[in-house]
Order: sequence, then C-alpha cells, then structure tokens
Amino acid sequence: MNFCSHCGAGLTQRIPAGDDRPRFVCDQCHTIHYQNPRMVVGTIPEWEDRILLCRRAIEPRAGRWTLPAGYLENGETMIDGARRETLEEARATLNDLTPFALFDLPFINQIYLMFRGPLRTADCHPGEESLEVRLFREDAIPWDELAFVVVRETLERYFSDRTEGRFRLHTGTIVPPPEAIHHRKA
Amino acid sequence: MNFCSHCGAGLTQRIPAGDDRPRFVCDQCHTIHYQNPRMVVGTIPEWEDRILLCRRAIEPRAGRWTLPAGYLENGETMIDGARRETLEEARATLNDLTPFALFDLPFINQIYLMFRGPLRTADCHPGEESLEVRLFREDAIPWDELAFVVVRETLERYFSDRTEGRFRLHTGTIVPPPEAIHHRKA
Repeated sequence: MNFCSHCGAGLTQRIPAGDDRPRFVCDQCHTIHYQNPRMVVGTIPEWEDRILLCRRAIEPRAGRWTLPAGYLENGETMIDGARRETLEEARATLNDLTPFALFDLPFINQIYLMFRGPLRTADCHPGEESLEVRLFREDAIPWDELAFVVVRETLERYFSDRTEGRFRLHTGTIVPPPEAIHHRKA
Repeated sequence: MNFCSHCGAGLTQRIPAGDDRPRFVCDQCHTIHYQNPRMVVGTIPEWEDRILLCRRAIEPRAGRWTLPAGYLENGETMIDGARRETLEEARATLNDLTPFALFDLPFINQIYLMFRGPLRTADCHPGEESLEVRLFREDAIPWDELAFVVVRETLERYFSDRTEGRFRLHTGTIVPPPEAIHHRKA
C-alpha cells in the first residue's frame, strides 16, 4: 500500500492519535486505510457416505484437492457465499447447511467458516477453477494431496465427528505448515 | 476508491476477465482491488445474573448502550480480538469464552461474532470509547436505548437461551432498522 485510494497522495505508516498500532495514513486528506482479515466461506458437500472434493486448476496448490471455498463478497451472507463457491467450483447445489468449523488463520489474515450439508444430487462437474470434482469415501480421501492445512483439519474433525455420531461446531487456530515457515525464512 | 493504492494511477470500475462482478481495477499496474466484508468480534460479559453493557462515547450512536465489540485486526484470532475489545471498552477481562452468535449484516458488509463468558471480577471501568460501563439484570436492560439492532438481537437470544437453561450457537441475518432505511431513502 503506497498511495491513498481516496486522493492519490503518498501514504505514510504511523500510529494515528487514539490508536495503538501502525496504519497507512494519508497526510493530505487524512484518510486512515485500515486493513482487516478476510473471511473465506466453504462447504463439506455430502452424498450418502461420500464427500465432494475439487482438484484445483489454479495456484496456489494447483493439482491438489480441496473443499469448495472462497472469499465472502460484499453484500453477501456467509451461507450464500458458501453456496456460490460450491456452485462455481463444483457446479453442485446443496440442501440445508449447518456451520461446522470456524477457524482462525492469523498468519495469512483469514477466517474460515465451513458449512456441512447434503448435495441435492450427485451431479457435479468441475467449474473454471477446478480440474476435477469427485465424491470420496473416508478411506479414499487423498490425504497426501490436500491443498491446505485448513482442509486437512476440517476433514479430520468431520470424519471424527461422523464416527462419534454427533456433529458440533469446531473452532481453533490453524498454524502454517512447516514448508510455509521454511519458505518464509528462505 | 479513486486511485490505485499500489501505483497511484486512476482506477476504473469493471468486471475483470473470469470474474462476474465489478471491481476497482488499475489499468496501469493491473492490480484488482477487491473489497470484502469486515468482521466485528465482541462479548457478552457475565457476572452472576448480570451482564455488562457500555454506553458509547463515540459516534455512531453516542450515548446509547452496547456490548463490547469492534473490528477484528490483522494477525489476531477472533477470541483475542473479542478480549481486546472488552478490555479497551470496559477495562474488563474474561474467563473462558464460548461462541454465541454469528450474524450476517450484508447491508453494511459486516459479520458479527459474539462470544459469551464470565468476567474475572466485577471490576470494570469505561475505556476511551465508553462514557459508562454497568452490569445489568435482565429486567433492567435499557432496551429502548440500545445502540444497534445486532445488539438487541444478541441480547434477546441470550436471555431466551438462559431462560431455557441451554445455550446454542445462533446464526442469522440482521436487517437494517426502519430508521436506517428511511435515512437511506432520504
């Protein structure tokens, strides 16, 4: 962030009066440009004893498997965003959705909210951001080819709850994978 | 949003290739400036049969009563943000927190996550953004002087759950109050 999006002047980074952390501030029009975490919404689409995964067509982690999810848009509810992402990435529609996991990812300034719910039909096809869409039984989940730690964490908790026969709301903080830490240090 | 925060060029609003909605796009450096909902985190601080409210010292709704809450910051977890806001606005600290309500406010591009949990002590004092901080029994809640619809909704559901003797996670969409609609039309 270099220039004021309101007036175009150069920005400086400092702690505004009454605040306690550095912000990008415009000394010309006095706008303070706050930066806040973004929310990712997605689903665990269920069909009988199988769940839907998408193989990513885009970076990061192209070629790896993920749950349908993406950034919540302005003017959109969380449940509508989760349905939209599932439609975009897997051309799939869902019946009633229930919040399943709400995770903090502070290392990348993201919040993940994952819903679970049954597919309307088993009919699904890759959208533009997916190479492939498939329904997996628990014993066929490609654990070593998942795209993100948050997807692994969501799936582990999902199958654990399913085995116990009761689903609850999961919360927690996701930490970066070792390779990401290594990558940052390099 | 008028200028590119990356290179300072003027922005145009159009639908980028592969997208389905208008974005602010820089034709000089090709940055797309996405705008996403912001998350507000807060608490229902409990002390015996009373809960804590703050009377707002700042606009909007100065002089009205609210629960401690504010924008989640980058690098912060939701629970840490909720504790920070409670400390800032009511100089109060809390024991274990449980997610209580997760609301969509699509008309102002906000998500509210409210936790509930017991205060460590009844000791609380107004922070810089509060005129007054007080513990209220249910029958003393100043319903007609609450600051926001989302606060009323949260408190109604809280006392209803408490009466039933069980708390659950509440979700839903908050609609703007009639006066806000009127104000927008005016």
